[in-house]
Formats: sequence, structure tokens, C-alpha cells
Amino acid sequence: MDIKAYMQRLGKQAKQAGREISKAQSGKKNTALFEIAAQLELHREFLTAENQQDLQLGKEKGLDTALLDRLELTPARISAMIEGLKQIAGLPDPVGEISQLNYRPSGIQVGQMRVPLGVIGIIYESRPNVTIDAAALCLKSGNACILRGGSESIRSNQAIATCISKGLEISGLPKEVVQVIETVDRDAVGELITLNEYVDVIIPRGGKSLIKRISKQATIAVIKHLDGICHVYIDDKANIDKAIAIVINAKTHRYGVCNAMETLLIAESIAAKVLPLLAEKYTMAGVELRGCDKTCALIENCLTATEEDWQTEYLAPILSIKIVADIDEAIIHINNYSSAHTESIITEDYTLARRFLREVDSSSVMVNTSTRFADGFEYGLGAEIGISTDKLHARGPVGLEGLTSLKYIVLGDGQIRQ
Amino acid sequence: MDIKAYMQRLGKQAKQAGREISKAQSGKKNTALFEIAAQLELHREFLTAENQQDLQLGKEKGLDTALLDRLELTPARISAMIEGLKQIAGLPDPVGEISQLNYRPSGIQVGQMRVPLGVIGIIYESRPNVTIDAAALCLKSGNACILRGGSESIRSNQAIATCISKGLEISGLPKEVVQVIETVDRDAVGELITLNEYVDVIIPRGGKSLIKRISKQATIAVIKHLDGICHVYIDDKANIDKAIAIVINAKTHRYGVCNAMETLLIAESIAAKVLPLLAEKYTMAGVELRGCDKTCALIENCLTATEEDWQTEYLAPILSIKIVADIDEAIIHINNYSSAHTESIITEDYTLARRFLREVDSSSVMVNTSTRFADGFEYGLGAEIGISTDKLHARGPVGLEGLTSLKYIVLGDGQIRQ
Repeated sequence: MDIKAYMQRLGKQAKQAGREISKAQSGKKNTALFEIAAQLELHREFLTAENQQDLQLGKEKGLDTALLDRLELTPARISAMIEGLKQIAGLPDPVGEISQLNYRPSGIQVGQMRVPLGVIGIIYESRPNVTIDAAALCLKSGNACILRGGSESIRSNQAIATCISKGLEISGLPKEVVQVIETVDRDAVGELITLNEYVDVIIPRGGKSLIKRISKQATIAVIKHLDGICHVYIDDKANIDKAIAIVINAKTHRYGVCNAMETLLIAESIAAKVLPLLAEKYTMAGVELRGCDKTCALIENCLTATEEDWQTEYLAPILSIKIVADIDEAIIHINNYSSAHTESIITEDYTLARRFLREVDSSSVMVNTSTRFADGFEYGLGAEIGISTDKLHARGPVGLEGLTSLKYIVLGDGQIRQ
Repeated sequence: MDIKAYMQRLGKQAKQAGREISKAQSGKKNTALFEIAAQLELHREFLTAENQQDLQLGKEKGLDTALLDRLELTPARISAMIEGLKQIAGLPDPVGEISQLNYRPSGIQVGQMRVPLGVIGIIYESRPNVTIDAAALCLKSGNACILRGGSESIRSNQAIATCISKGLEISGLPKEVVQVIETVDRDAVGELITLNEYVDVIIPRGGKSLIKRISKQATIAVIKHLDGICHVYIDDKANIDKAIAIVINAKTHRYGVCNAMETLLIAESIAAKVLPLLAEKYTMAGVELRGCDKTCALIENCLTATEEDWQTEYLAPILSIKIVADIDEAIIHINNYSSAHTESIITEDYTLARRFLREVDSSSVMVNTSTRFADGFEYGLGAEIGISTDKLHARGPVGLEGLTSLKYIVLGDGQIRQ
């Protein structure tokens, strides 16, 4: 197989299909989403059988349990994919929305129209349900997409791709609106991220090393989702009950997620009161604590945190704790060590809450709530394709709107520039 | 001079200053803009004297007349810079604006806050007034900036930089909010566009080759302003008087600008009626015409357009003309050859106008008006730092809003994720 020629063909087809889907009516796009859902329903056995082959091969290759778990398409997960398609069909169509259409002194009317980006390349790891999520979000937002899943899920992804193609065909849309790369050849990724003529943006989903490598090698713009070194700062004006509930939730609700808290900051004047209570709860939950010297002096079973700890996204039952003098020191620590993903302050003080919201430079900044809420569903986006840690274009959870752009539209009746 | 160390220092200072300016009150930022204006007023003679030295050196080096003209700081241009500062002071502050703050089912409130990008690096060519425009837009939008002008305007830019520094100091803001690179060493640009630790975005302003080179070499995100191959399509339902006025304006109002029309498309059924009238006017204005075969058959003094003509931004009194069957052929031609800058349709037909607005994939899409309106001032942005031909982040004229991003803010009263 000539990978270069193959990817050029995919790119060319995607660009052409992108033009079609960009002008497709909302109703037609929704029909396609429902038809794809119907195809998944119809082919449950086929999907399961193909997935079993991936699982079998994965076991033979010695993939670890967590990876095998993510790879599995259980009946419940197939149902969730079907449900997800229907939910995305139910979201408002962002494409074509016109905003701020105002008359200018010259007599022209100037506004902005929301438009698709064009062709989106998405590179992801083992979870096959991403194939459906990504396809559905791109389709609804009027974009064509080229999808590249993990090699260990190739059969599952191809089975899903068949359902998507059929759904598109039945609803009268070009099946090239969604193309799943059919080869596990790694060179396909290198080609995809340099298809400047055809692809408008690359979205990598996966581990930090994958994303860093792709960002470095891509010649196309990348919407990045890097690490989440999230902080919660308990201020001395915090309601202690709320504070404890929130920081326990932010750390222990799920460990392996990017919006879990990794570092707890606490105001010095309440540390002696709060930290022993917290330490007990964390220890019961099996969380290892690593604190600054002052923290270690207040609680038992606390390891000394090193400089590296403040820079680490544990994704594990480990928490670093630092006692700070006040909000100023907290903000300085956050702006130095945070990955600019999500931070939260716990306080009942109006002025400090207002300062924290303005001065902390992260994609989500919160008051009196858990960092675990940083999520497209919780924010009301309906779905998300990832959480952007970039500053340009889209910051935070990326939903349909993040897959679109705004062009200017100008209406006149003969005006010329003086 | 150790360029690497020098640029690292500038970057570090800019990042620190960026944190200060990001939280500065609107009033203080406006005061700074007025103080900078006052400094320019106070130092008119100094500015003129320094500029004269640049001009003298430029003449000795044999710079062409157009370049020397752009380089000159006349009293009127100094007045325009002062006026520009006051206008930008008068614009609403985009920073901190909160939108779409809505309650979610969980009880949290989720909204978006407009925030500065951080540190912006701007690379531009000979016009020294860009130094003021860029500084003012960055300051107002809460960003720090590092500016790099053309080597031929180094003394003028340094003189302006002195005024900016004094204005910032008087108003109590760090003078590192605006830093103008003090050396003409070309390596400084290479360092600037790879200062990932400190700089958030690069905006190059200048010729296509400069922008392409910078985009290729930069490891930081670039907001690009590439070429403007702008089209006007005269539909067979056009009002002929409006059509003629608009296409004459779009081509002849100014030749060397990116929003000038470079290709005229016209519906076959009205070509014989309209083209001879137009050809006469263009010829009188000194515009060279290059047409498709059908065009050449209708008008005199018309050269045959080659494939290359459809791909060329002339920036000169040259126009390519193509007769097309209808709007479908027009849109296909535009989507193939346009640089996605600005296109306009001339028609009185409601349905075709609506289709053109939706289906043409350019940063500005117009009905019944001149492409020359594609401009930040005309659109009501107050000022612009360039016209983006990118799709991500900002498309079309980039004003204060394009220099900001949206972060999510979340307000709760103790909510935890279930």
C-alpha cells in the first residue's frame, strides 16, 4: 500500500465531502445521526464479534488490563454510543448562526456567521467509542473528518466505520464525510498531520507524549489537550464543610482523569484545623500525601514533597499539599505550576472570589466547587471532543462551537468605499 | 550582544508584565494610552529628527520611493498616531466580559470570561506607525507585547518606544508591557518566534514571503495574514449600475491593498452587455485586462488569462476576468482559486445572495458591496492589527477581541460531582 497516495486520496475526498456537509441542512445531518444509530443497533452482534477479535489479539500481545478494559465494547457501551448520537442530533445546529449584524455609518451591515472549520483530523488511542463521538460531533458541526484510532482497536473501528458509512449513504450524504483510516501503518499519522492542502485542524486525544509528538511534527494547526495539573485553594474564609467535601471529591472521585485535583493549597491560618481532618479521610481512601515542610509538621504519614511534585500530574491516588500565606501566594504558585487546565478557590469572601476568577489564567476557573466539573457535558455543551489547554481558538471543553469558526458577512445595496 | 540571552530576558519581562496588565483596570489602561499620546505630542521634533536619520540612511542604501514613503513620519502621520491612541482608549475594554453565565442542572453556574492571550510578538516591516497601533491594541486588550519593526526604521521605532515607555511609567504600569527590540540583528526574529516559554502568539505583518517564512519556522502559534485574491461575481440578476460602481471601486480605489478585487467573475447572459462598458472604464483608469477566451471575444485590448492569472494577487492595475455560466460555476471557481480573504456577489436575487453567503468559504463574504470594505475600521472594530486568513481563532479583520480568548468560569456553593 502506498501510504502517501492513500492519505492524499483520503484528504482530497474529505475536502470535497467537507464542502457538501458544510452546506447540508440541519435536518439532513440529524437524519444521518439517527441512521448511524440505527446501523449500530442493527449490527450489535457484528460489532461485538469484531471487538472480540481485537480483545483476543490484545490479550495475546499482553496489553495491560486497563487498556483491555478501555478497548472492550460491552452491550452497555454500544447503547451509550447510540444514545450519544441521538443526544448530538438533539443539540442546536451551530452552523450558519449569524450574530451581531449591525449597520455601520457607511450603510453596510456587518455581522458574523458561524461556519465549519472544513476537514478535521482526529488521532486517538484505544477506546473505540471515540470513533462515534468524533464522527458525530464533526458531522453535526458541518465538518468532514479523517479518524485514526489505535492499532489495537482496528477491527472495532472498521466495524463502526461501516455503520457510519451506511448511515451517511441512507441519508443521502457523501460517505467520505467520515473516513476511518484503514491501515495500522504508523506512517499514516505522519501523512495526516502534514496534509496542509486538505486538512484544516488536527485534534490528538491521548497521552501527553502522543500529543507533544504530534504538535511538534504537525504542519497543520493542532488543538491540544495536554496535562491537567489542577489546584484547589482553601482560603481562610472557606466554609470548612464545603471545603472538605469538595477537595475529597476533586481528588478521589476518579484518579486517572485530567480534571482531578493534583495539588491542594491551603491558607496557613486554617491549616492546623483542616489538614488533620483531611489527612484522615485521604488516608482512609488510600491517597498518598506529599506535603511541604509545614504540612508534614501538621499531619502524620506525609512524605516531603519535592520540586518535581508540584510539576506532576499524578493521575493516581497521590496528592501534593502546600500551605500558603494567602491568596497572593496561592495565585503565584498556581500561575507557576499549573498546566492552566482547571483551578478552584474555596472561600465565602466575595472580593477574593472575584480576584481569583480574574487573575488565575486557566481554561476553567472555579469558586466553591469541584474541579471534576470541568467537562463538556457538565458545562452544557452536550458533548466534547476534548479539553483544550491552548489559549488560541478554543480553551477548555471543546464542543460543537469549538469545531466552528466565525466569518464576516457584509450586506450592502451598492455601497462603495470612499 | 548575546541575542539569545537578550531575547530570553525580553520574554521573561514580558510574561511578568503581561500578568500585571492582564489584571489592570480599564481606567488605568486608558490613562496610559492618553499619556503615550501626550508623549508623542511633546516629542514631535525628536520623532521627526530620528525619522529623518532613518530616511537619510534609507536613501543612501538606495531604498525605493514606495518604501521611503511608508517610512516617513510626517506631522500628519504623527497626528494620526496620536488620534489612533485616543480612539483605542475610547473603545470598550474587552477584558473580563462575562457571557452566557447560566445555571446547570447540578446547580453550578457556568459562563465564559474574555481574557488576554498573554504575550504577543509582532513582526512588521517599514511603517513606524505600526509600532503605536500594535502597542495600543495589545495594551488595551491586556496583553504584553514584544515588537520587531523593520531594520530601516530602527531609529524611528526606538524614538516611539521611548514615548511609550514614558507614558506607561507615568501611568504606573510596568514599562515592559511594550518592549521594542533594540537590535537589527536578524537572529532576534528567530529567537522571538521560538520563545515558547514566554510568548503566546506571533503576528507577522508584511509581505507573503515574510509571513510564510515565519509560519514555517515558528514553534509558537501564528495568526497569519497571507494574500488577498478577492473576487466579485456579477450575477445576471445584478443591478447593472450598482455592479459597475462596485467593481470599479473594488479594483481601482487602491491597487496595493489586500482587499482589492483581483478577479472579476460575470454571468454569461449579461457579459455582452456589461463587459464592454466596464472595459472602457478600466482602460481609462489604466487597468490592464486579462480575460478568458469568451471575455477576449467581447472586449478589445484584452490579454488572454493563463492558469497563473487566476492564482495571482496582482496588487497592481491588472484585473483578470472570467465569464461563468452561473453562481455554481462562480462558487466553484472562488473555492478553488480564492485565498479565502474576501468575495462579493452582486445580485438582486434573494435566494442566490443567501446561498453565496453560506457557501463561500472566505473570511469576509459580501452582497452588493465593494471588497474594499473588508477592514477593521469599516467593520466597527475601532482598529485592526491585521486581517487573518486563518480559520482557527480569528478570521478576517483582527481587533481587540482577536487578541483575547475565552476561559470558562464556574460558580458554585459547595457542589461536588456525583
